[in-house]
Amino acid sequence: MSRPSQHGGGQAGPPIAGDPSTFPPDAELARTLAAAQTRATLSTLTSEGYPYGSAVSYAVDGTGAPILLVSDMAEHTVNVRGDDRVSLLVAAETPDGADPLSTARMTLVGRMHLLADPGERRDAYLAAHPYASYYADFSDFGFWQLDVEQCRFVGGFGHMSWVDGTAYAAATVDPVAVAAEAIIAHMNADHADANLSYATALAGLTDATAAHMVGIDRHGITLRVETPDAPRMARLGFPEALSSADEARPAVIALLAQARAQAG
Amino acid sequence: MSRPSQHGGGQAGPPIAGDPSTFPPDAELARTLAAAQTRATLSTLTSEGYPYGSAVSYAVDGTGAPILLVSDMAEHTVNVRGDDRVSLLVAAETPDGADPLSTARMTLVGRMHLLADPGERRDAYLAAHPYASYYADFSDFGFWQLDVEQCRFVGGFGHMSWVDGTAYAAATVDPVAVAAEAIIAHMNADHADANLSYATALAGLTDATAAHMVGIDRHGITLRVETPDAPRMARLGFPEALSSADEARPAVIALLAQARAQAG
Repeated sequence: MSRPSQHGGGQAGPPIAGDPSTFPPDAELARTLAAAQTRATLSTLTSEGYPYGSAVSYAVDGTGAPILLVSDMAEHTVNVRGDDRVSLLVAAETPDGADPLSTARMTLVGRMHLLADPGERRDAYLAAHPYASYYADFSDFGFWQLDVEQCRFVGGFGHMSWVDGTAYAAATVDPVAVAAEAIIAHMNADHADANLSYATALAGLTDATAAHMVGIDRHGITLRVETPDAPRMARLGFPEALSSADEARPAVIALLAQARAQAG
Repeated sequence: MSRPSQHGGGQAGPPIAGDPSTFPPDAELARTLAAAQTRATLSTLTSEGYPYGSAVSYAVDGTGAPILLVSDMAEHTVNVRGDDRVSLLVAAETPDGADPLSTARMTLVGRMHLLADPGERRDAYLAAHPYASYYADFSDFGFWQLDVEQCRFVGGFGHMSWVDGTAYAAATVDPVAVAAEAIIAHMNADHADANLSYATALAGLTDATAAHMVGIDRHGITLRVETPDAPRMARLGFPEALSSADEARPAVIALLAQARAQAG
């Protein structure tokens, strides 16, 4: 994610340059992560009271509530019929060689119930998991919904919070997320000069020697900036939050025009 | 894994040709899976009694017991200090587009305790997770061990069992597993004729038209065989279980000599 690394034990990095208030709220990061993934770990309670983890596939409804298709014979289904308290761990992919503890993940804690009439939730699930269509109608499979009561969101080292179920359901999935990886790769490969202009003219890091884009979302961009002292993180906001991935390219160009005007 | 797909609801495929008694025991598959992976989901119990999943890295000791390095401030550490009952879900990678329910995974259920003197378990952990060395000695991080009481092993659709902790600890990690993917790719790319000979001469599928290797382990090979009727799975054992990955190539060649002798 787009926050600087910061060990929870108290070793804080230097302050973030630019406007850190434009980082997305954790509720939005959580909803965006839930929408981006399709596989997770469900934790249920065994009859002996042990917590029991199992691999599941899921899709989300319009409020971010996970929908699962499970077999009546699976251990987790037996468990949840005995006690409906569950959690679902959803994690972003960890790049090869990176520490998974630096990767965004979250635990959605709540209760699960069988959907008597899954309707469009069934369609959403099968769109995300087409291979499941051959057993979706077996009489021993059913669609279940997790009602999220709490979300523990962990963006990486030192970046974590509890998001309550209401805030989670009310938050927005970031439409820019699907394009972020490609935009970042393009900016770093072809526009090192633009990245440096953002850092020097807009984030106030006038002695910056190089800058890499490390994040983009509908609220702004995040940079890792090399300076003679030490690397610094910088955050720059867009004038208005974007409402589609198509708006990202013009927004990044507009930010560059602003940087050049500022540099005069 | 190497078993045929079989839906738990009762739709069995045709019987496995050859010698299905040579499939590895589930305890061995479980120990091999635990040794092959480094990341998992830990399920713990919150103070309110909810099961709580979180992402962890682990390594195994010589008995397959997972060793974890966790922060005192992490939710799962707070949870396990309140109740030591946990489980660890370990899953094989699911190929892109495949159904994760067809992928091998297991849940190790047991209790966790802090290692006062982790010794060589610390070394094993840091060998698997070199990036962790920079915080391994922080005073707020500790090495913990999961004592496995039960293992729920799921090899894929319709292939699942409970393995008790003693059998899990006593089982062998398959030394051929690390080379299996490369051997399978080589056999399918360059030795379609050998695969077909295995099926016709050794598995008794005399009308086979093609065969692909889908599994190899220290006990034998698994094939998917095309026949005029339907695809069939076939299993062939080695005369003796192999004790290293280096023995796999000669064993596969010896099996071919046997097939050619049989075919006369």
